[in-house]
Amino acid sequence: MSPSDGLNPDHHRPGVVLLSGGLDSATVLAIAQKQGFACHALAFDYGQRHRHELDAARRVAEALGAASFRVFPIDTGSFGGSALTDPGVAVPKDRSGGRAVNDIPITYVPARNLVFLSVALALAETLGAHDLFIGVNEVDYSGYPDCRPEFIASFQQTANLATKAGVERNGFTVHTPLIGMGKDDIIRAGTALGVDYAMTHSCYDPVVAGGEALACGRCDSCRLRRRGFERAGVADPTKYAGTA
Amino acid sequence: MSPSDGLNPDHHRPGVVLLSGGLDSATVLAIAQKQGFACHALAFDYGQRHRHELDAARRVAEALGAASFRVFPIDTGSFGGSALTDPGVAVPKDRSGGRAVNDIPITYVPARNLVFLSVALALAETLGAHDLFIGVNEVDYSGYPDCRPEFIASFQQTANLATKAGVERNGFTVHTPLIGMGKDDIIRAGTALGVDYAMTHSCYDPVVAGGEALACGRCDSCRLRRRGFERAGVADPTKYAGTA
Repeated sequence: MSPSDGLNPDHHRPGVVLLSGGLDSATVLAIAQKQGFACHALAFDYGQRHRHELDAARRVAEALGAASFRVFPIDTGSFGGSALTDPGVAVPKDRSGGRAVNDIPITYVPARNLVFLSVALALAETLGAHDLFIGVNEVDYSGYPDCRPEFIASFQQTANLATKAGVERNGFTVHTPLIGMGKDDIIRAGTALGVDYAMTHSCYDPVVAGGEALACGRCDSCRLRRRGFERAGVADPTKYAGTA
Repeated sequence: MSPSDGLNPDHHRPGVVLLSGGLDSATVLAIAQKQGFACHALAFDYGQRHRHELDAARRVAEALGAASFRVFPIDTGSFGGSALTDPGVAVPKDRSGGRAVNDIPITYVPARNLVFLSVALALAETLGAHDLFIGVNEVDYSGYPDCRPEFIASFQQTANLATKAGVERNGFTVHTPLIGMGKDDIIRAGTALGVDYAMTHSCYDPVVAGGEALACGRCDSCRLRRRGFERAGVADPTKYAGTA
């Protein structure tokens, strides 16, 4: 049943989708829209070094027809401690170190997904939505603790204990449609749903040239993205800086 | 062993204390300081109608000798839906209604404690602290879902799954030193620790006169506070507006 035929009882059910401007969350938004949710996209301005992500998120939300798009400012970046928010910490290139103990990348931002999901929950409760969507996946949870399925399950339980809507209706579900997917699976799924990945931004350390943010091609995020397109057999629309 | 004799091995262990400017969290800060933690006090500017709370929080942090004090802006109030942040929703007086189904007050703010604790966790992880303190108590959790012990326990589990520090050392503890206490117990405990409750602010709907925020004496928060002092046998230092 197509979400556009008006017969899907969930057609107008509101959902909150965490949108970063990257490839994964763009795919999640496309999947949630396809499932018939009226998607309220939520991006975070958390002091990340590169604001191109937020521009990308807005473009993606508009292109995929989200019901609303918000950028929520949350300055956990001011606490410091991550290569993604702290100018004093270098973004690792070409797999040059950058892994802490337990193989957690130094691009880890303290408690990021917990903070983001908590704010998304507050928005969901206010909107009367019971469904949250987040693009965590197999690639992420090899490194980031807050991308693992056991974290998501625990968060969902906490959410239902934390809120009026949870207590009254035991109502929140955290959807992770990409959870078992590799980057190539994600790219194939999104391509089938018409996602234009040229709009998305993955690079941790882009080169700005002529007002455009070109991907460095060398950080972990670029490497994973490029290999994903190769493996998926989909042409990579990413604009890379010269060295690529 | 006194925390000031320098022999307590926990003497300089950092902790993060949620501080609202109210009576409960001031007492928690005093207890955590007494236990020898170097307390980093964290207040939130979440769009609450009355900023006197934040002034009170700063005064309390300074008076009790906190290691640091931060006001973290987080605009979940912009989502709407609570009498504490939405000018379109009246604060109930003299127990005049104001209870939703399941007896959750309309002063409930969606997912507030989950959002606050998540940000506190991000700060704790950045500071290398493993201890969070929050002033939830018996009075609160009769009404607010996110003040119940089962919520706190679930949050602690989620926190340890969400974070690098949790994964590496299973490290976070959420302390709720007031959890079994009534308002009178809290006031007695704080008084014994030298808390000056005149600095604290509890009223949901204060009357500003001569630059001072006078308590209305009639909202739920004022009623609980006043009765607490009566039952504790401690003189109430609160300045009430005329009608009191």
